[in-house]
Amino acid sequence: MKFHYPNGKPYVPKANSVAPQLKKYKNQVYSNRGMTLEEDLNETNSYYLERKIAIIHKKPTPVQIVNVDYPKRSAAVIKEAYFKQASTTDYNGIYKGKYIDFEAKETKFSTSFPLKNFHLHQIQHMEDILKHHGICFVILRFSKLEEVYLLEAKHLLAFWARMEEGGRKSITKEEIEELGHHIPLGLQPRIDYIKVIDYLYNLS
Amino acid sequence: MKFHYPNGKPYVPKANSVAPQLKKYKNQVYSNRGMTLEEDLNETNSYYLERKIAIIHKKPTPVQIVNVDYPKRSAAVIKEAYFKQASTTDYNGIYKGKYIDFEAKETKFSTSFPLKNFHLHQIQHMEDILKHHGICFVILRFSKLEEVYLLEAKHLLAFWARMEEGGRKSITKEEIEELGHHIPLGLQPRIDYIKVIDYLYNLS
Repeated sequence: MKFHYPNGKPYVPKANSVAPQLKKYKNQVYSNRGMTLEEDLNETNSYYLERKIAIIHKKPTPVQIVNVDYPKRSAAVIKEAYFKQASTTDYNGIYKGKYIDFEAKETKFSTSFPLKNFHLHQIQHMEDILKHHGICFVILRFSKLEEVYLLEAKHLLAFWARMEEGGRKSITKEEIEELGHHIPLGLQPRIDYIKVIDYLYNLS
Repeated sequence: MKFHYPNGKPYVPKANSVAPQLKKYKNQVYSNRGMTLEEDLNETNSYYLERKIAIIHKKPTPVQIVNVDYPKRSAAVIKEAYFKQASTTDYNGIYKGKYIDFEAKETKFSTSFPLKNFHLHQIQHMEDILKHHGICFVILRFSKLEEVYLLEAKHLLAFWARMEEGGRKSITKEEIEELGHHIPLGLQPRIDYIKVIDYLYNLS
């Protein structure tokens, strides 16, 4: 099916670009923390989407809007807003008819992954997703080592429970190596996590 | 599994409330257009979530953040941001292991539903979801009549194609009555669309 705008103009999809202002903002705010992983995953998801492999999107950052200005003849400007904590994971979608749900986080540490990278709401959300037979996992990046792992949510929940019971507040690198799945970084797609899902769920 | 904050405080879920500022903002912006439907669906989704029936969330409004202020000792304030057009539908999640995806729209008209309520990106997204065997539909509300219908995406796509081929730019009320499924408004949940999904996909 070809798409046209109602005025008859054919639809030309925009290239995947981030506005210059946003890039600036990103650097200001996070000094690149988390951004590289997010950008890599966005590129990966675009790759999957364009090739009709999977439909997975990052959810927009939740923002509480308080004040909006409506200038004449130009777009509405949000003048006051606040970041809200997400109640779910950041990424979800569909792959081969299966519901896919994941969160992506990175750490500067090299020997363990702190659990404080996850919020309680996200942990509860992952638990719910598993109960509803969704495919749920986290993508963990050790930024200094440039190593990326996929860890199934069931393991993350077990490590969270260990912390709740008074155990360590992080997952050791060894545990991630043993229970997780290393994803070699590629060019296209950059983080080919769907391959791991194929392997884990016999979907290929 | 009971959840506690890392400091040992038990987790108490917040009541579903909208901050007074946001309510004000909503009324300013939309003069209630679309808001009642969104609120009804949010309540419905909370109902499903609390009872472990389905996990369906509305995605946050996509916002392009340009400028953020970081006052000492208080939360970051977004000082300049713009609304972005969504590239997907607003709602998605999982129900009985199935991927669920939908958009909700309302009209003040009583005899037809204008197709301009949908964006091309959303139409393409719905088409993709169907190809990946997801459950995809729209919830349409005739606000003056207070009537709500679930219409499967396959029908919406056919009406969109009719428009593309030079046909009418709306769906008639009769067509929606014939092909869609009327959802009687309830108290809890307010818009029990999962019942229609059970019926359509034999999931009950």
